[in-house]
Amino acid sequence: MKLCRYGPKGQEKPGVIDADGRIRDLSSVVGDITANEVRLSQLAKLKTADLNALPVAEGQPRYGVPVANIGKIIAVGLNYADHAAESNLPVPPEPIYFTKATSSLSGPNDDVMKPRDATKMDWEVELGVIIGKTCRYVDEKDALSHVAGYVLVNDVSERAFQKERGSQWVKGKGCDTFCPTGPWLVTADELGDPQALDMFLDVNGQRMQTGNTRTMIFPVAEALAYISRFVTLQPGDMVITGTPPGVGEGKKPNPIYLNAGDTMHLGVSKLGEQRQTVIPFSLHGLEIIE
Amino acid sequence: MKLCRYGPKGQEKPGVIDADGRIRDLSSVVGDITANEVRLSQLAKLKTADLNALPVAEGQPRYGVPVANIGKIIAVGLNYADHAAESNLPVPPEPIYFTKATSSLSGPNDDVMKPRDATKMDWEVELGVIIGKTCRYVDEKDALSHVAGYVLVNDVSERAFQKERGSQWVKGKGCDTFCPTGPWLVTADELGDPQALDMFLDVNGQRMQTGNTRTMIFPVAEALAYISRFVTLQPGDMVITGTPPGVGEGKKPNPIYLNAGDTMHLGVSKLGEQRQTVIPFSLHGLEIIE
Repeated sequence: MKLCRYGPKGQEKPGVIDADGRIRDLSSVVGDITANEVRLSQLAKLKTADLNALPVAEGQPRYGVPVANIGKIIAVGLNYADHAAESNLPVPPEPIYFTKATSSLSGPNDDVMKPRDATKMDWEVELGVIIGKTCRYVDEKDALSHVAGYVLVNDVSERAFQKERGSQWVKGKGCDTFCPTGPWLVTADELGDPQALDMFLDVNGQRMQTGNTRTMIFPVAEALAYISRFVTLQPGDMVITGTPPGVGEGKKPNPIYLNAGDTMHLGVSKLGEQRQTVIPFSLHGLEIIE
Repeated sequence: MKLCRYGPKGQEKPGVIDADGRIRDLSSVVGDITANEVRLSQLAKLKTADLNALPVAEGQPRYGVPVANIGKIIAVGLNYADHAAESNLPVPPEPIYFTKATSSLSGPNDDVMKPRDATKMDWEVELGVIIGKTCRYVDEKDALSHVAGYVLVNDVSERAFQKERGSQWVKGKGCDTFCPTGPWLVTADELGDPQALDMFLDVNGQRMQTGNTRTMIFPVAEALAYISRFVTLQPGDMVITGTPPGVGEGKKPNPIYLNAGDTMHLGVSKLGEQRQTVIPFSLHGLEIIE
């Protein structure tokens, strides 16, 4: 099953992708797709619904983040050997992880905004894992049975913020719009093996990243088992699993960074594709909650 | 106004502390105290209620985390010059921050569990700041007007996880029960100057930390303004602002770490006190959501 949320920002409706690739409106079955609905027990109920009887969404609606209230985002760093090499960093002996702010989440095709002080903005195509059952000290052999499904993520980064402003990478990872996620969540049963997925990312039509999840240093099951010894993962949390070679900071002879007007196009097998345009910094139109 | 949540874990009710220090039941005014209720606009409404007409809570109920659904926790590191020195780390030229997992939150007097592989568990008394209005590129002079209130936090840490398992501190900061928070939130208007608060922490009855928020390297307003250039803070988010000297890893001639059976007692002026007992690792009784 492929679950999505579609419609204008802040007004997304729950949807499911049918066999012909059309969005069908899931509103009559579930109010929204949240951390509650991706619990394994709730997903099992969704699968019993007659999805083909649901109305087809009209037009070409915008996709939102496929899960409404992702609780936390844990990101495994340097998880592809070739990417560690291009970053001039040794292959880690055990997984290294950081976090991305949930406030950085945005729809898969929404514009990506260059922060005010950004000078080294970069891309990272990644496989995202949505948790469906509490993971706490899980064994590697059991880890994948805690997964609700998988999503495509662009782990947008600002390398100067990440690496030149203190030691903690989180500073370059959590800006608004830095976590395009979607278009849909593919449930674990439908995806199959998460370690056999092709990945690509183009900038301005030029291929930058090519990879396959089979070359992960710490595959999904091992990463989840490891992380769960340090922090409890809950339904609706997302783990992103690192990026293959080809990020901008590793380009020879000189790094390539994103600027306003640049476009990104990325995809992972079975998980769909994303297209983003980088826009200049502006506070105009950004929501202020008080 | 002092807001709290009280009652058994998972069944907390909203409360307010009256002039005599008693909890009054706020259930008739508001369903719970969440990120929604700590928005400045909502707090203003709460303040118009006749709180002295509310029923007094019976007995000595447990305190929970004062805000139900804290969205993210940003933690400023090395924010007291003497603490940086005892950690053998230079005073940072600009704020350094990491995150704590929201799944690490627990009530102010709940037991703190030693993780399975922990060997260097440590304490940190801190001033926590609860955001009441979206902070995005705020100026230092305006920053405090975005604060809903302040809370007492124990930033429990595992130093081997934090510093010996890769470069990213988050690994030693997010274990279950590692973020005791409360007993109450003191609204910004009632607290006054956040840079004039005494702090202490005792372990097994022995004074370990003594400090005052006036010795912060980056005061609250400066820290919030800085953070808001990298990540947007939303109502219900919490920023914790660093710890004064006296953590276990800095003790001479040898570091002191926490073990099962140890007790912590800590406080910050106006924000109340916490008492925790360290318990041995056990999965027994921990909730699994699926």
